[in-house]
Amino acid sequence: MAKSDKINFSTPSGFPEFLPSEKRLEVYLLDIIRKVFESYGFTPIETPAVERLEVLQAKGNQGDNIIYGIDPILPPNRQAEKDKSGETGSEARALKFDQTVPFAAYIARHLNELTFPFARYQMDVVFRGERAKDGRFRQFRQCDIDVVARGKLSLLYDAQMPAIITEIFEAINIGDFVIRINNRKILTGFFQSVGVAENQIKACIGIIDNLEKIGETKVKQELEKEGISSEQTEKIIEFIKIDGSVDDVLDKLKYLGLNLPSAEEFNLGVSELETVINGVRDLGVADKRFCIDLSIARGLNYYTGTVYETSLIGHEALGSICSGGRYEELVGMFLGEKMPGVGISIGLTRLISRLLKAGILNTLPPTPAQVMVVNMQEDLMPVYLKVSQQLRQAGINVVTNFDKKQLGKQFQSADKQGIRFCVIIGADEAAAEKSSLKDLQTGEQIEVALANLAEEIKQRLGIIKSV
Amino acid sequence: MAKSDKINFSTPSGFPEFLPSEKRLEVYLLDIIRKVFESYGFTPIETPAVERLEVLQAKGNQGDNIIYGIDPILPPNRQAEKDKSGETGSEARALKFDQTVPFAAYIARHLNELTFPFARYQMDVVFRGERAKDGRFRQFRQCDIDVVARGKLSLLYDAQMPAIITEIFEAINIGDFVIRINNRKILTGFFQSVGVAENQIKACIGIIDNLEKIGETKVKQELEKEGISSEQTEKIIEFIKIDGSVDDVLDKLKYLGLNLPSAEEFNLGVSELETVINGVRDLGVADKRFCIDLSIARGLNYYTGTVYETSLIGHEALGSICSGGRYEELVGMFLGEKMPGVGISIGLTRLISRLLKAGILNTLPPTPAQVMVVNMQEDLMPVYLKVSQQLRQAGINVVTNFDKKQLGKQFQSADKQGIRFCVIIGADEAAAEKSSLKDLQTGEQIEVALANLAEEIKQRLGIIKSV
Repeated sequence: MAKSDKINFSTPSGFPEFLPSEKRLEVYLLDIIRKVFESYGFTPIETPAVERLEVLQAKGNQGDNIIYGIDPILPPNRQAEKDKSGETGSEARALKFDQTVPFAAYIARHLNELTFPFARYQMDVVFRGERAKDGRFRQFRQCDIDVVARGKLSLLYDAQMPAIITEIFEAINIGDFVIRINNRKILTGFFQSVGVAENQIKACIGIIDNLEKIGETKVKQELEKEGISSEQTEKIIEFIKIDGSVDDVLDKLKYLGLNLPSAEEFNLGVSELETVINGVRDLGVADKRFCIDLSIARGLNYYTGTVYETSLIGHEALGSICSGGRYEELVGMFLGEKMPGVGISIGLTRLISRLLKAGILNTLPPTPAQVMVVNMQEDLMPVYLKVSQQLRQAGINVVTNFDKKQLGKQFQSADKQGIRFCVIIGADEAAAEKSSLKDLQTGEQIEVALANLAEEIKQRLGIIKSV
Repeated sequence: MAKSDKINFSTPSGFPEFLPSEKRLEVYLLDIIRKVFESYGFTPIETPAVERLEVLQAKGNQGDNIIYGIDPILPPNRQAEKDKSGETGSEARALKFDQTVPFAAYIARHLNELTFPFARYQMDVVFRGERAKDGRFRQFRQCDIDVVARGKLSLLYDAQMPAIITEIFEAINIGDFVIRINNRKILTGFFQSVGVAENQIKACIGIIDNLEKIGETKVKQELEKEGISSEQTEKIIEFIKIDGSVDDVLDKLKYLGLNLPSAEEFNLGVSELETVINGVRDLGVADKRFCIDLSIARGLNYYTGTVYETSLIGHEALGSICSGGRYEELVGMFLGEKMPGVGISIGLTRLISRLLKAGILNTLPPTPAQVMVVNMQEDLMPVYLKVSQQLRQAGINVVTNFDKKQLGKQFQSADKQGIRFCVIIGADEAAAEKSSLKDLQTGEQIEVALANLAEEIKQRLGIIKSV
């Protein structure tokens, strides 16, 4: 067989590929995330990877993203079809670069088939022509939830988000984290009150959102560059640095609202924030899991109320591991209808890559098999197959070793793959309907009747928690 | 908010999109399939949607497929980067059109990081520029498993495939099916024995593979068009029509092998088939689930031994619902190494679409929620939130109704979404730590102490099996 040695078979730059031990970690995390999403009634959807270009570019939502157009390549023997294939000459299409614009299109496409408030999750991959640098991928998976309404959407949906974030990251067990909550109306309202012009407010919010990244001095400089007076800048900086317990901050905000001029928007934001915080508490989220952080704004302009970021304590440099917020004019864009919504997003591919690199998460064993039935002698194969099936029917993942090798080599191979148990059946054991069970984790080897084998293994798997 | 009314927000032709009730069915089926795959030790991998074009076109494997090249589109404010983005001018890339070529590339890319025999599953979406007609999609999900070895690969891996197919389709519960098994060496050997020239054999196999689709007369005509004599054609037709029980057919083949001239390849195939059949039986697959069908050949030229197709009894027109086989020179293509492998594939998107249309499968309720905690009075919301969390912690999927509506309307909304239970708590119930539990499936309404609510619901969900 000739080697195709002129072919560069590496992945295209920026398109990541997991080894089995990494992919299994992703599957494990996706299962946890999905289970939490579904426990709150979020239902799965998936939109195609490919959309009409005009959809992706609607409302200027391409943003700064390089998106990938798609272009049919006919096989050599079908070149003649070029004009009649229905593929060429058709409208421009491209790969989706986020889940938001396609979700808006999904709602427009199925408006009358969905029940509102519509709570959906989506865990698809998206594509962006990022420069392939550290932690940036051109294809990555995002885990998003949003709930959207026609008309009004209760602020208690906003309160559910921190409960969901908490459950997910507690289940993943990545150490302490804190969800930083704010409300854009408080920021907007405060800026109005100190006299920042309407058309400067969004830019100012964008600047203070970078406080953590660029530091206070830089924020001041940038605000002044925007034309904000140094007096206003001082007030803004003092304001966004308000901290303390959640109740302290709420008290300070309420007190401030009493004295601010034209504080309507501000006070509305404070009242929304208080409702959300009360809901978060009623949902049983521990106080240490959330705080109010007035410097959180989320760069994206579409947020209009509650906003969230999540920091891993001791690893703040990783940035937010789950963010989101409330919006009004996003998912209704194709319908010309205001549809309030609130959502969060976990950039899973990037998160896994960063958590692995930081040693916060470990990969899983490269195989899901928990048991290897070893091959002692070929003529016992019918017994090995039968025992393997009995274990599988009991819910255990099993590989049968079809290749006859030295027993030690078979143990080695199992151990290398992270398979915990070896089942050993020679002629004597087969005759006596017994087996030797070797636990590679403890080194123990015990005799077990075949009738009890599944039970014994399940017990051992249960005692030492396996993932 | 202005409507973007010039935008065509429909999906591009041929790119399917599921409603929640359909997507939930897909998720449910993927879980079943994954569980069976993993119980045999197959491990998940995922290759990027995008590969270098030269990889996809290696060994002429584009076949008849229209594939989608990708082409970066810069946002308006970044046009100046056109030449330095690292995206333009780089090598051609395209979307994968099957899992086979990327799997071969995966093996080449990670050869030294994988343990062989390497058993992997893959459930990614692939892209083909099919004409968008009945049941053909341009993006679809395939569930593939393959096990590949360096050197020799036991025929017992071939025997596992029918066991896996059986477990999956019994779990999905779609009625009776039969796995038709053959071995290409038997066909090739028979053709050699009746004097068909080497260079005509592949074409002949392609023709008889169409027997079920085009009928006997057409097969004869096409064989004769290939230059096969009518005497040879008669022998071939008679041969591929051999039927009976598995043991009958094996006996007939063995007897035939004794008298055929130059029957080496033929007899090797028969012996392989017998080994596989014995393994399938040792794995406990019921006799009614499989048969030998000498007309099964799989069109694809890379198969060299065992081949499988699966027919749904009473719905044969649906075609094969799971197919595959053994190959030698497929996954090693980028390494120039013979790597024997055996695999099967379920074209899930197409299968779901056909089974739904044929009424063999039904969609699931549009939400995973099993319980709605209804809203009797706003001031009891803290109780509703607490009860919702208790149920979630017990593993139940819950929506809390934040909008105050008539009780009947809330029941209606739950019923419409397929939510089975409503939990009703008024002021009196809250004071007494009780609730009324309404089972919308039976119409019953009973009083349950809040402390026992999760248990009661779980029992009811367990009694009437829910999916």
